Amino acid sequence: MSKPAVYDLAHIQSLVRAIPDFPHKGIVFQDIFPIFQDPVAIESLTLHLLTRIKETLGEETNKVDVVVGLDARGFLFGPALAIHLGAAFVPVRKQGKLPGACTTASYSKEYGTDVLEVQEGAIRPGQRVIIIDDLIATGGTAAAAGELVRKSKGTIAMYLFVIELLFLKGRDKLEGGSVESLLHYED
Amino acid sequence: MSKPAVYDLAHIQSLVRAIPDFPHKGIVFQDIFPIFQDPVAIESLTLHLLTRIKETLGEETNKVDVVVGLDARGFLFGPALAIHLGAAFVPVRKQGKLPGACTTASYSKEYGTDVLEVQEGAIRPGQRVIIIDDLIATGGTAAAAGELVRKSKGTIAMYLFVIELLFLKGRDKLEGGSVESLLHYED
Repeated sequence: MSKPAVYDLAHIQSLVRAIPDFPHKGIVFQDIFPIFQDPVAIESLTLHLLTRIKETLGEETNKVDVVVGLDARGFLFGPALAIHLGAAFVPVRKQGKLPGACTTASYSKEYGTDVLEVQEGAIRPGQRVIIIDDLIATGGTAAAAGELVRKSKGTIAMYLFVIELLFLKGRDKLEGGSVESLLHYED
Repeated sequence: MSKPAVYDLAHIQSLVRAIPDFPHKGIVFQDIFPIFQDPVAIESLTLHLLTRIKETLGEETNKVDVVVGLDARGFLFGPALAIHLGAAFVPVRKQGKLPGACTTASYSKEYGTDVLEVQEGAIRPGQRVIIIDDLIATGGTAAAAGELVRKSKGTIAMYLFVIELLFLKGRDKLEGGSVESLLHYED
């Protein structure tokens, strides 16, 4: 099999599909799954994420211990990045989904609160962590994931997203590490 | 970075952690996430899945068009397999999670029924599909995923699981393709 081309970010962004009024009226949902229709696009996206990590962390890239992926779409990218970085992959899920003893963090949603969990011992004290998800909107889930890393006594090296909805200013909620994203939407 | 060793399946199985009484009393949950603590184990598992596909499908491996991954743990393996196979990755999720027009299939659970969805057009008529998930227990979700493939007029090449709980006989519910799994539990 010949080595496939790597798509640039503009081409990958052209594959994202805007779906109005999902999940609620007035919200425009950015659907990343059309990217996954093309294996070259999947691989290209993984390589762009990896490049951004190396650009952001420089020589510290080799010191990343853990990639934390948020359920469910962070699971699409996290394991591949962990393999590339020689790091562990650790899931963050909603309460009740992970077996065994867990550390919890809650965050506010439009209606009420939600609770996220990480398994105890999955992140060890002093480990350097990258938190990855497909999209940052208001930043509530990523901020809660950051809290889980800190409660586990890990250090946040960076937060990394495929898509950032700039107008929602979610990055302002994130503490303790650089915030990076590949594809931007202004409104 | 030197090429890492590939762990054999016995070593990978030794990493799986049995957690009693989760999610309900009397159920022993087989937790695959400890595998993800070691990037060599993640990559080894991916390679074993790929090897099983090639052993099962032979020359037909090159004709696989789509890898269907079940939310959420099927998302951990699906994209990597799709890249290796030069195939699309298509998610199957619970109703209400996927944007846009969807095809639905319902299945019975211990209490009531659940509905799974796939996006319309994600699987095209005549495409050859592998359905992947981390674990087959009673087979309800995998059978519903198979129904979604058939409703999309795709062909099921195989069902593939990391773990099979043999005593639950879930494979008896699956139609239209080979059923393969890497790690087995007898009780």
